[in-house]
Amino acid sequence: MRFTSQTSSDGVTEQLFTLGEIPGVLWTPEDALGTRPLILMGHGGRQHKQAPGVLDGARRFAAEGGFAVAAIDAPNHGERPEDEEFGRIATEMRAGMAAGEDPAALVAAMHNHLAGRAVAEWQAVLTAVQQLDHVGDGPVGYWGMSMGCGLGVPFIAAEPRVRAAVLGLLGATALAETAARITVPVRFLVQWDDQLVPRAQSLALYDAFGSAEKTLHANPGNHGDLPRFETDSALRFFTRHLR
Amino acid sequence: MRFTSQTSSDGVTEQLFTLGEIPGVLWTPEDALGTRPLILMGHGGRQHKQAPGVLDGARRFAAEGGFAVAAIDAPNHGERPEDEEFGRIATEMRAGMAAGEDPAALVAAMHNHLAGRAVAEWQAVLTAVQQLDHVGDGPVGYWGMSMGCGLGVPFIAAEPRVRAAVLGLLGATALAETAARITVPVRFLVQWDDQLVPRAQSLALYDAFGSAEKTLHANPGNHGDLPRFETDSALRFFTRHLR
Repeated sequence: MRFTSQTSSDGVTEQLFTLGEIPGVLWTPEDALGTRPLILMGHGGRQHKQAPGVLDGARRFAAEGGFAVAAIDAPNHGERPEDEEFGRIATEMRAGMAAGEDPAALVAAMHNHLAGRAVAEWQAVLTAVQQLDHVGDGPVGYWGMSMGCGLGVPFIAAEPRVRAAVLGLLGATALAETAARITVPVRFLVQWDDQLVPRAQSLALYDAFGSAEKTLHANPGNHGDLPRFETDSALRFFTRHLR
Repeated sequence: MRFTSQTSSDGVTEQLFTLGEIPGVLWTPEDALGTRPLILMGHGGRQHKQAPGVLDGARRFAAEGGFAVAAIDAPNHGERPEDEEFGRIATEMRAGMAAGEDPAALVAAMHNHLAGRAVAEWQAVLTAVQQLDHVGDGPVGYWGMSMGCGLGVPFIAAEPRVRAAVLGLLGATALAETAARITVPVRFLVQWDDQLVPRAQSLALYDAFGSAEKTLHANPGNHGDLPRFETDSALRFFTRHLR
Protein backbone atom coordinates (compact mmCIF):
# COMPACT_ATOMS: atom_id res chain seq x y z
CA MET A 1 0.00 0.00 0.00
CA ARG A 2 1.51 3.26 -1.14
CA PHE A 3 0.30 6.72 -0.13
CA THR A 4 0.61 9.29 -2.90
CA SER A 5 -0.81 12.42 -1.26
CA GLN A 6 -2.19 13.73 2.02
CA THR A 7 -4.30 16.81 2.70
CA SER A 8 -6.32 17.94 5.70
CA SER A 9 -9.31 20.28 5.94
CA ASP A 10 -12.22 20.80 8.32
CA GLY A 11 -10.85 18.24 10.76
CA VAL A 12 -10.53 15.41 8.21
CA THR A 13 -7.34 14.01 6.68
CA GLU A 14 -7.64 12.61 3.15
CA GLN A 15 -4.92 10.24 1.93
CA LEU A 16 -4.79 8.98 -1.66
CA PHE A 17 -3.26 5.54 -2.01
CA THR A 18 -2.69 2.69 -4.42
CA LEU A 19 -2.76 -0.97 -3.53
CA GLY A 20 -1.35 -2.81 -6.54
CA GLU A 21 -3.46 -1.44 -9.41
CA ILE A 22 -6.28 -0.23 -7.14
CA PRO A 23 -6.47 3.54 -6.55
CA GLY A 24 -8.13 4.46 -3.25
CA VAL A 25 -8.79 7.17 -0.68
CA LEU A 26 -8.68 6.97 3.08
CA TRP A 27 -10.39 9.59 5.25
CA THR A 28 -9.67 9.77 8.98
CA PRO A 29 -10.26 12.38 11.67
CA GLU A 30 -7.28 14.79 11.70
CA ASP A 31 -4.64 13.61 14.19
CA ALA A 32 -6.39 10.22 14.53
CA LEU A 33 -4.46 7.80 16.73
CA GLY A 34 -5.24 4.15 17.35
CA THR A 35 -7.93 1.69 16.30
CA ARG A 36 -11.34 2.89 15.13
CA PRO A 37 -14.31 1.45 13.20
CA LEU A 38 -13.92 1.53 9.42
CA ILE A 39 -16.56 2.23 6.77
CA LEU A 40 -15.97 1.09 3.18
CA MET A 41 -17.87 3.13 0.59
CA GLY A 42 -18.71 1.77 -2.87
CA HIS A 43 -19.49 4.35 -5.57
CA GLY A 44 -22.20 4.14 -8.24
CA GLY A 45 -21.89 3.22 -11.93
CA ARG A 46 -19.85 5.68 -14.04
CA GLN A 47 -18.79 7.37 -10.78
CA HIS A 48 -15.52 7.15 -8.88
CA LYS A 49 -14.02 7.05 -5.37
CA GLN A 50 -14.45 10.80 -4.81
CA ALA A 51 -17.89 11.25 -6.40
CA PRO A 52 -19.97 13.82 -4.46
CA GLY A 53 -22.26 11.25 -2.78
CA VAL A 54 -19.25 9.29 -1.49
CA LEU A 55 -17.18 12.34 -0.55
CA ASP A 56 -19.96 14.03 1.42
CA GLY A 57 -20.73 10.89 3.43
CA ALA A 58 -17.07 10.00 3.96
CA ARG A 59 -16.10 13.40 5.34
CA ARG A 60 -19.10 13.44 7.68
CA PHE A 61 -18.53 9.87 8.91
CA ALA A 62 -14.92 10.80 9.70
CA ALA A 63 -15.54 14.27 11.17
CA GLU A 64 -18.73 13.61 13.12
CA GLY A 65 -18.42 9.90 13.90
CA GLY A 66 -14.65 9.53 14.24
CA PHE A 67 -14.69 6.69 11.70
CA ALA A 68 -11.99 5.75 9.23
CA VAL A 69 -13.54 5.66 5.74
CA ALA A 70 -12.10 4.08 2.60
CA ALA A 71 -13.24 4.23 -1.03
CA ILE A 72 -11.66 2.73 -4.15
CA ASP A 73 -12.27 3.08 -7.86
CA ALA A 74 -14.22 0.01 -8.94
CA PRO A 75 -12.75 -1.97 -11.87
CA ASN A 76 -13.11 0.05 -15.10
CA HIS A 77 -14.06 3.19 -13.19
CA GLY A 78 -12.38 6.44 -12.14
CA GLU A 79 -8.62 6.45 -12.84
CA ARG A 80 -8.57 2.83 -13.95
CA PRO A 81 -8.23 1.57 -17.52
CA GLU A 82 -11.22 -0.01 -19.24
CA ASP A 83 -10.89 -3.62 -20.33
CA GLU A 84 -12.28 -4.82 -23.64
CA GLU A 85 -14.99 -7.02 -22.14
CA PHE A 86 -16.26 -4.09 -20.04
CA GLY A 87 -16.40 -1.86 -23.12
CA ARG A 88 -18.44 -4.52 -24.92
CA ILE A 89 -20.88 -4.95 -22.02
CA ALA A 90 -21.24 -1.18 -21.60
CA THR A 91 -22.04 -0.81 -25.31
CA GLU A 92 -24.56 -3.65 -25.10
CA MET A 93 -26.12 -2.05 -22.04
CA ARG A 94 -26.58 1.31 -23.73
CA ALA A 95 -27.91 -0.28 -26.91
CA GLY A 96 -30.26 -2.54 -24.96
CA MET A 97 -31.65 0.38 -22.95
CA ALA A 98 -32.15 2.41 -26.13
CA ALA A 99 -34.00 -0.59 -27.58
CA GLY A 100 -36.30 -0.79 -24.56
CA GLU A 101 -34.87 -3.98 -23.02
CA ASP A 102 -35.25 -4.62 -19.27
CA PRO A 103 -32.76 -2.17 -17.72
CA ALA A 104 -32.53 -4.27 -14.54
CA ALA A 105 -31.20 -7.28 -16.47
CA LEU A 106 -28.70 -5.13 -18.39
CA VAL A 107 -27.43 -3.49 -15.21
CA ALA A 108 -27.22 -6.87 -13.48
CA ALA A 109 -25.07 -8.22 -16.33
CA MET A 110 -22.69 -5.30 -15.89
CA HIS A 111 -22.47 -5.77 -12.11
CA ASN A 112 -21.98 -9.49 -12.59
CA HIS A 113 -19.01 -8.83 -14.87
CA LEU A 114 -17.40 -6.62 -12.21
CA ALA A 115 -18.36 -8.44 -9.03
CA GLY A 116 -15.68 -11.14 -8.86
CA ARG A 117 -12.81 -8.66 -9.14
CA ALA A 118 -14.57 -6.06 -7.00
CA VAL A 119 -15.06 -8.49 -4.10
CA ALA A 120 -11.43 -9.64 -4.15
CA GLU A 121 -10.23 -6.03 -4.32
CA TRP A 122 -12.37 -4.89 -1.40
CA GLN A 123 -11.06 -7.82 0.65
CA ALA A 124 -7.45 -6.89 -0.14
CA VAL A 125 -8.07 -3.21 0.61
CA LEU A 126 -9.80 -4.04 3.89
CA THR A 127 -6.85 -6.17 5.00
CA ALA A 128 -4.32 -3.50 4.02
CA VAL A 129 -6.18 -0.55 5.53
CA GLN A 130 -6.69 -2.34 8.85
CA GLN A 131 -2.91 -2.73 9.17
CA LEU A 132 -2.52 1.05 9.45
CA ASP A 133 -1.93 2.35 12.97
CA HIS A 134 -4.68 4.99 12.74
CA VAL A 135 -7.27 2.46 11.49
CA GLY A 136 -6.53 -0.92 13.10
CA ASP A 137 -8.83 -3.94 13.16
CA GLY A 138 -12.01 -2.44 14.61
CA PRO A 139 -15.55 -3.24 13.42
CA VAL A 140 -16.23 -2.73 9.70
CA GLY A 141 -19.27 -1.30 7.89
CA TYR A 142 -20.09 -1.01 4.19
CA TRP A 143 -22.03 1.77 2.41
CA GLY A 144 -23.00 1.50 -1.26
CA MET A 145 -25.80 2.80 -3.46
CA SER A 146 -26.77 1.60 -6.94
CA MET A 147 -23.67 -0.17 -8.39
CA GLY A 148 -22.13 0.24 -4.93
CA CYS A 149 -25.01 -1.93 -3.71
CA GLY A 150 -24.72 -4.36 -6.62
CA LEU A 151 -21.03 -4.99 -5.85
CA GLY A 152 -21.53 -4.61 -2.10
CA VAL A 153 -24.07 -7.42 -1.74
CA PRO A 154 -21.65 -10.18 -2.94
CA PHE A 155 -18.82 -8.57 -0.94
CA ILE A 156 -20.78 -8.52 2.32
CA ALA A 157 -22.13 -12.03 1.74
CA ALA A 158 -18.52 -13.25 1.30
CA GLU A 159 -16.90 -11.20 4.05
CA PRO A 160 -17.48 -11.93 7.74
CA ARG A 161 -15.51 -8.84 8.79
CA VAL A 162 -18.39 -6.57 7.62
CA ARG A 163 -20.79 -6.12 10.54
CA ALA A 164 -23.40 -3.62 9.23
CA ALA A 165 -24.33 -2.16 5.84
CA VAL A 166 -26.18 0.77 4.30
CA LEU A 167 -27.30 -0.26 0.81
CA GLY A 168 -29.88 0.89 -1.72
CA LEU A 169 -30.99 2.26 -5.10
CA LEU A 170 -31.00 -1.17 -6.69
CA GLY A 171 -33.46 -4.01 -7.33
CA ALA A 172 -33.43 -7.73 -6.66
CA THR A 173 -32.60 -8.89 -10.21
CA ALA A 174 -29.81 -11.51 -9.97
CA LEU A 175 -29.05 -10.46 -6.36
CA ALA A 176 -31.81 -12.03 -4.26
CA GLU A 177 -30.03 -15.31 -3.52
CA THR A 178 -26.83 -13.58 -2.50
CA ALA A 179 -28.74 -11.04 -0.40
CA ALA A 180 -30.42 -13.89 1.46
CA ARG A 181 -26.99 -14.96 2.76
CA ILE A 182 -26.44 -11.57 4.41
CA THR A 183 -27.38 -11.61 8.08
CA VAL A 184 -25.79 -8.43 9.46
CA PRO A 185 -28.00 -5.36 10.16
CA VAL A 186 -28.93 -3.63 6.90
CA ARG A 187 -30.29 -0.16 6.20
CA PHE A 188 -31.81 -0.18 2.70
CA LEU A 189 -32.57 3.09 0.86
CA VAL A 190 -35.25 3.39 -1.81
CA GLN A 191 -36.08 6.42 -3.95
CA TRP A 192 -39.85 6.15 -4.37
CA ASP A 193 -39.86 7.59 -7.91
CA ASP A 194 -36.57 6.00 -9.05
CA GLN A 195 -36.57 6.20 -12.86
CA LEU A 196 -33.93 3.44 -13.11
CA VAL A 197 -35.09 0.92 -10.52
CA PRO A 198 -38.75 -0.17 -10.46
CA ARG A 199 -40.25 0.18 -6.98
CA ALA A 200 -41.33 -3.47 -6.80
CA GLN A 201 -37.77 -4.63 -7.53
CA SER A 202 -36.39 -2.42 -4.76
CA LEU A 203 -38.92 -3.79 -2.29
CA ALA A 204 -38.04 -7.32 -3.42
CA LEU A 205 -34.34 -6.76 -2.67
CA TYR A 206 -35.18 -5.42 0.81
CA ASP A 207 -37.36 -8.48 1.25
CA ALA A 208 -34.52 -10.80 0.23
CA PHE A 209 -31.95 -9.85 2.88
CA GLY A 210 -31.52 -12.59 5.47
CA SER A 211 -30.89 -10.08 8.27
CA ALA A 212 -33.07 -10.09 11.38
CA GLU A 213 -32.56 -6.32 11.60
CA LYS A 214 -33.17 -4.64 8.28
CA THR A 215 -34.84 -1.27 7.85
CA LEU A 216 -36.10 0.19 4.59
CA HIS A 217 -36.09 3.97 4.21
CA ALA A 218 -38.02 5.34 1.24
CA ASN A 219 -38.13 8.97 0.14
CA PRO A 220 -39.80 10.71 -2.79
CA GLY A 221 -37.68 11.56 -5.80
CA ASN A 222 -35.52 10.12 -8.55
CA HIS A 223 -32.44 7.89 -8.46
CA GLY A 224 -30.15 10.84 -7.79
CA ASP A 225 -32.30 12.68 -5.23
CA LEU A 226 -31.31 10.89 -2.02
CA PRO A 227 -32.02 13.45 0.75
CA ARG A 228 -29.11 14.70 2.82
CA PHE A 229 -30.77 13.66 6.09
CA GLU A 230 -30.23 10.03 5.08
CA THR A 231 -26.50 10.68 5.59
CA ASP A 232 -27.21 11.78 9.19
CA SER A 233 -29.32 8.68 9.59
CA ALA A 234 -26.61 6.41 8.13
CA LEU A 235 -24.07 7.95 10.50
CA ARG A 236 -26.28 7.07 13.47
CA PHE A 237 -26.88 3.57 12.08
CA PHE A 238 -23.13 2.92 11.81
CA THR A 239 -22.53 4.47 15.23
CA ARG A 240 -25.15 2.20 16.77
CA HIS A 241 -23.70 -0.96 15.19
CA LEU A 242 -19.96 -0.33 15.01
CA ARG A 243 -19.26 1.76 18.13
CA MET B 1 -58.28 22.35 32.31
CA ARG B 2 -57.93 20.71 35.68
CA PHE B 3 -54.84 18.88 36.94
CA THR B 4 -55.61 15.89 39.12
CA SER B 5 -52.15 14.55 39.95
CA GLN B 6 -48.46 15.23 39.44
CA THR B 7 -45.48 12.91 39.80
CA SER B 8 -41.86 13.17 38.72
CA SER B 9 -39.29 10.48 37.99
CA ASP B 10 -36.12 10.17 35.91
CA GLY B 11 -36.20 13.85 35.01
CA VAL B 12 -39.78 13.85 33.67
CA THR B 13 -42.88 15.33 35.30
CA GLU B 14 -46.18 13.59 34.50
CA GLN B 15 -49.39 15.51 35.12
CA LEU B 16 -52.82 13.91 34.75
CA PHE B 17 -55.54 16.32 33.70
CA THR B 18 -59.11 16.55 32.50
CA LEU B 19 -60.41 19.02 29.96
CA GLY B 20 -64.20 18.79 30.13
CA GLU B 21 -64.82 15.05 29.70
CA ILE B 22 -61.41 14.36 28.18
CA PRO B 23 -58.83 12.66 30.43
CA GLY B 24 -55.26 13.45 29.46
CA VAL B 25 -51.61 13.32 30.48
CA LEU B 26 -48.91 15.93 30.05
CA TRP B 27 -45.22 15.05 30.25
CA THR B 28 -42.59 17.79 30.56
CA PRO B 29 -38.94 17.84 31.56
CA GLU B 30 -38.71 18.23 35.34
CA ASP B 31 -38.45 21.90 36.31
CA ALA B 32 -39.41 22.97 32.75
CA LEU B 33 -39.80 26.73 32.41
CA GLY B 34 -41.05 28.63 29.36
CA THR B 35 -42.16 27.76 25.84
CA ARG B 36 -41.09 24.51 24.20
CA PRO B 37 -42.22 22.39 21.21
CA LEU B 38 -45.16 20.10 21.93
CA ILE B 39 -45.79 16.56 20.68
CA LEU B 40 -49.32 15.14 20.74
CA MET B 41 -49.43 11.33 20.91
CA GLY B 42 -52.45 9.33 19.71
CA HIS B 43 -52.78 5.79 21.10
CA GLY B 44 -53.89 2.68 19.19
CA GLY B 45 -57.27 0.93 19.18
CA ARG B 46 -58.28 -0.63 22.51
CA GLN B 47 -55.31 1.16 24.10
CA HIS B 48 -55.23 4.32 26.23
CA LYS B 49 -53.22 7.46 26.94
CA GLN B 50 -50.59 5.62 29.00
CA ALA B 51 -50.24 2.48 26.88
CA PRO B 52 -46.61 1.28 26.81
CA GLY B 53 -45.91 2.49 23.25
CA VAL B 54 -47.11 5.99 24.09
CA LEU B 55 -45.52 6.14 27.54
CA ASP B 56 -42.10 5.02 26.36
CA GLY B 57 -42.00 7.57 23.54
CA ALA B 58 -43.46 10.37 25.66
CA ARG B 59 -40.93 10.01 28.45
CA ARG B 60 -38.03 9.88 26.00
CA PHE B 61 -39.26 12.88 23.97
CA ALA B 62 -39.53 14.88 27.22
CA ALA B 63 -36.31 13.66 28.88
CA GLU B 64 -34.00 13.54 25.86
CA GLY B 65 -35.55 16.18 23.59
CA GLY B 66 -36.90 18.66 26.14
CA PHE B 67 -40.35 18.45 24.50
CA ALA B 68 -43.73 18.80 26.17
CA VAL B 69 -45.81 15.73 25.28
CA ALA B 70 -49.58 15.29 25.66
CA ALA B 71 -51.78 12.22 25.24
CA ILE B 72 -55.52 11.83 25.76
CA ASP B 73 -57.89 8.89 25.91
CA ALA B 74 -59.65 8.73 22.53
CA PRO B 75 -63.47 8.66 22.64
CA ASN B 76 -64.67 5.29 24.01
CA HIS B 77 -61.17 4.36 25.16
CA GLY B 78 -59.24 4.27 28.43
CA GLU B 79 -61.16 5.83 31.35
CA ARG B 80 -63.98 7.06 29.12
CA PRO B 81 -67.49 5.55 28.90
CA GLU B 82 -68.51 3.63 25.80
CA ASP B 83 -71.43 4.99 23.79
CA GLU B 84 -74.06 2.72 22.29
CA GLU B 85 -73.11 3.37 18.67
CA PHE B 86 -69.47 2.53 19.44
CA GLY B 87 -70.53 -0.74 21.06
CA ARG B 88 -72.56 -1.63 18.00
CA ILE B 89 -69.69 -0.85 15.59
CA ALA B 90 -67.18 -2.75 17.74
CA THR B 91 -69.46 -5.79 17.75
CA GLU B 92 -69.91 -5.56 13.99
CA MET B 93 -66.16 -5.24 13.55
CA ARG B 94 -65.40 -8.36 15.57
CA ALA B 95 -68.16 -10.33 13.86
CA GLY B 96 -67.03 -9.13 10.41
CA MET B 97 -63.43 -10.11 11.09
CA ALA B 98 -64.51 -13.54 12.37
CA ALA B 99 -66.57 -13.91 9.16
CA GLY B 100 -63.55 -13.08 7.00
CA GLU B 101 -64.67 -9.63 5.82
CA ASP B 102 -62.05 -7.05 4.75
CA PRO B 103 -60.48 -5.96 8.07
CA ALA B 104 -59.34 -2.65 6.55
CA ALA B 105 -62.91 -1.61 5.77
CA LEU B 106 -64.13 -2.63 9.25
CA VAL B 107 -61.31 -0.72 10.97
CA ALA B 108 -61.94 2.31 8.75
CA ALA B 109 -65.63 2.32 9.74
CA MET B 110 -64.57 2.37 13.40
CA HIS B 111 -62.08 5.20 12.91
CA ASN B 112 -64.65 7.13 10.88
CA HIS B 113 -67.11 6.88 13.76
CA LEU B 114 -64.53 8.34 16.16
CA ALA B 115 -62.79 10.87 13.92
CA GLY B 116 -65.13 13.86 14.17
CA ARG B 117 -65.05 13.93 17.96
CA ALA B 118 -61.38 13.00 18.14
CA VAL B 119 -60.32 15.90 15.88
CA ALA B 120 -62.36 18.45 17.86
CA GLU B 121 -60.97 17.10 21.14
CA TRP B 122 -57.36 17.25 19.97
CA GLN B 123 -57.90 20.84 18.84
CA ALA B 124 -59.35 21.80 22.24
CA VAL B 125 -56.55 20.02 24.11
CA LEU B 126 -53.89 21.64 21.94
CA THR B 127 -55.31 25.10 22.65
CA ALA B 128 -55.56 24.44 26.39
CA VAL B 129 -52.11 22.86 26.77
CA GLN B 130 -50.41 25.70 24.90
CA GLN B 131 -51.79 28.16 27.45
CA LEU B 132 -49.67 26.57 30.17
CA ASP B 133 -46.54 28.52 31.12
CA HIS B 134 -44.24 25.48 30.81
CA VAL B 135 -45.59 24.58 27.33
CA GLY B 136 -46.49 27.81 25.52
CA ASP B 137 -47.26 28.17 21.83
CA GLY B 138 -44.16 26.62 20.27
CA PRO B 139 -44.16 24.35 17.20
CA VAL B 140 -46.40 21.26 17.39
CA GLY B 141 -45.85 17.69 16.23
CA TYR B 142 -48.15 14.66 16.17
CA TRP B 143 -47.25 10.99 16.71
CA GLY B 144 -49.77 8.19 16.17
CA MET B 145 -49.68 4.54 15.13
CA SER B 146 -52.58 2.36 13.96
CA MET B 147 -55.79 4.04 15.28
CA GLY B 148 -53.56 6.93 16.36
CA CYS B 149 -52.74 7.30 12.67
CA GLY B 150 -56.37 6.85 11.58
CA LEU B 151 -57.50 9.67 13.86
CA GLY B 152 -54.30 11.67 13.36
CA VAL B 153 -54.62 11.99 9.58
CA PRO B 154 -57.91 13.96 9.71
CA PHE B 155 -56.60 15.96 12.70
CA ILE B 156 -53.38 17.01 10.93
CA ALA B 157 -55.24 17.75 7.68
CA ALA B 158 -57.58 20.05 9.64
CA GLU B 159 -55.03 21.65 11.93
CA PRO B 160 -52.43 24.13 10.64
CA ARG B 161 -50.68 24.27 14.02
CA VAL B 162 -49.24 20.75 13.46
CA ARG B 163 -45.93 21.11 11.65
CA ALA B 164 -44.57 17.53 11.48
CA ALA B 165 -45.95 14.03 12.07
CA VAL B 166 -44.82 10.48 12.75
CA LEU B 167 -47.58 8.12 11.59
CA GLY B 168 -47.89 4.46 10.65
CA LEU B 169 -49.25 0.94 11.05
CA LEU B 170 -52.31 1.69 8.95
CA GLY B 171 -53.42 1.42 5.33
CA ALA B 172 -54.96 3.83 2.84
CA THR B 173 -58.55 2.57 3.06
CA ALA B 174 -60.85 5.63 3.40
CA LEU B 175 -57.85 7.84 4.31
CA ALA B 176 -56.09 8.55 1.00
CA GLU B 177 -57.99 11.73 0.13
CA THR B 178 -57.49 13.22 3.56
CA ALA B 179 -53.81 12.22 3.58
CA ALA B 180 -53.35 14.03 0.26
CA ARG B 181 -54.25 17.31 2.02
CA ILE B 182 -51.36 16.89 4.48
CA THR B 183 -48.28 18.81 3.37
CA VAL B 184 -46.10 18.90 6.51
CA PRO B 185 -43.08 16.55 6.80
CA VAL B 186 -44.23 13.00 7.55
CA ARG B 187 -42.36 9.98 8.89
CA PHE B 188 -44.42 6.88 8.07
CA LEU B 189 -43.74 3.55 9.81
CA VAL B 190 -44.57 0.18 8.27
CA GLN B 191 -44.21 -3.27 9.82
CA TRP B 192 -43.25 -5.45 6.87
CA ASP B 193 -45.11 -8.53 8.16
CA ASP B 194 -48.07 -6.66 9.69
CA GLN B 195 -50.80 -9.24 10.20
CA LEU B 196 -53.50 -6.54 10.41
CA VAL B 197 -52.50 -4.14 7.63
CA PRO B 198 -51.67 -5.53 4.17
CA ARG B 199 -48.33 -4.24 2.93
CA ALA B 200 -49.76 -2.79 -0.29
CA GLN B 201 -52.28 -0.71 1.69
CA SER B 202 -49.51 0.68 3.91
CA LEU B 203 -47.46 1.64 0.86
CA ALA B 204 -50.56 3.24 -0.66
CA LEU B 205 -51.08 5.44 2.40
CA TYR B 206 -47.44 6.55 2.30
CA ASP B 207 -47.94 7.28 -1.39
CA ALA B 208 -51.04 9.36 -0.67
CA PHE B 209 -49.49 11.99 1.62
CA GLY B 210 -49.22 15.37 -0.10
CA SER B 211 -45.99 16.21 1.73
CA ALA B 212 -42.84 17.07 -0.23
CA GLU B 213 -40.82 15.52 2.60
CA LYS B 214 -42.15 12.12 3.58
CA THR B 215 -40.01 9.16 4.57
CA LEU B 216 -41.19 5.59 4.90
CA HIS B 217 -39.41 3.36 7.42
CA ALA B 218 -40.17 -0.35 7.16
CA ASN B 219 -38.98 -3.04 9.56
CA PRO B 220 -39.60 -6.78 9.73
CA GLY B 221 -42.20 -8.03 12.18
CA ASN B 222 -45.85 -7.91 13.13
CA HIS B 223 -48.16 -5.00 13.98
CA GLY B 224 -46.92 -4.87 17.56
CA ASP B 225 -43.18 -5.33 16.90
CA LEU B 226 -42.10 -1.74 16.14
CA PRO B 227 -38.38 -1.67 17.00
CA ARG B 228 -37.22 0.60 19.79
CA PHE B 229 -34.71 2.38 17.55
CA GLU B 230 -37.66 3.93 15.69
CA THR B 231 -38.32 5.94 18.86
CA ASP B 232 -34.77 7.35 18.68
CA SER B 233 -35.36 8.09 15.04
CA ALA B 234 -38.72 9.80 15.74
CA LEU B 235 -37.05 11.93 18.42
CA ARG B 236 -34.48 13.12 15.89
CA PHE B 237 -37.19 13.73 13.28
CA PHE B 238 -39.16 15.93 15.70
CA THR B 239 -35.98 17.68 16.83
CA ARG B 240 -35.09 18.47 13.21
CA HIS B 241 -38.53 19.88 12.40
CA LEU B 242 -39.72 21.46 15.64
CA ARG B 243 -36.51 22.79 17.24
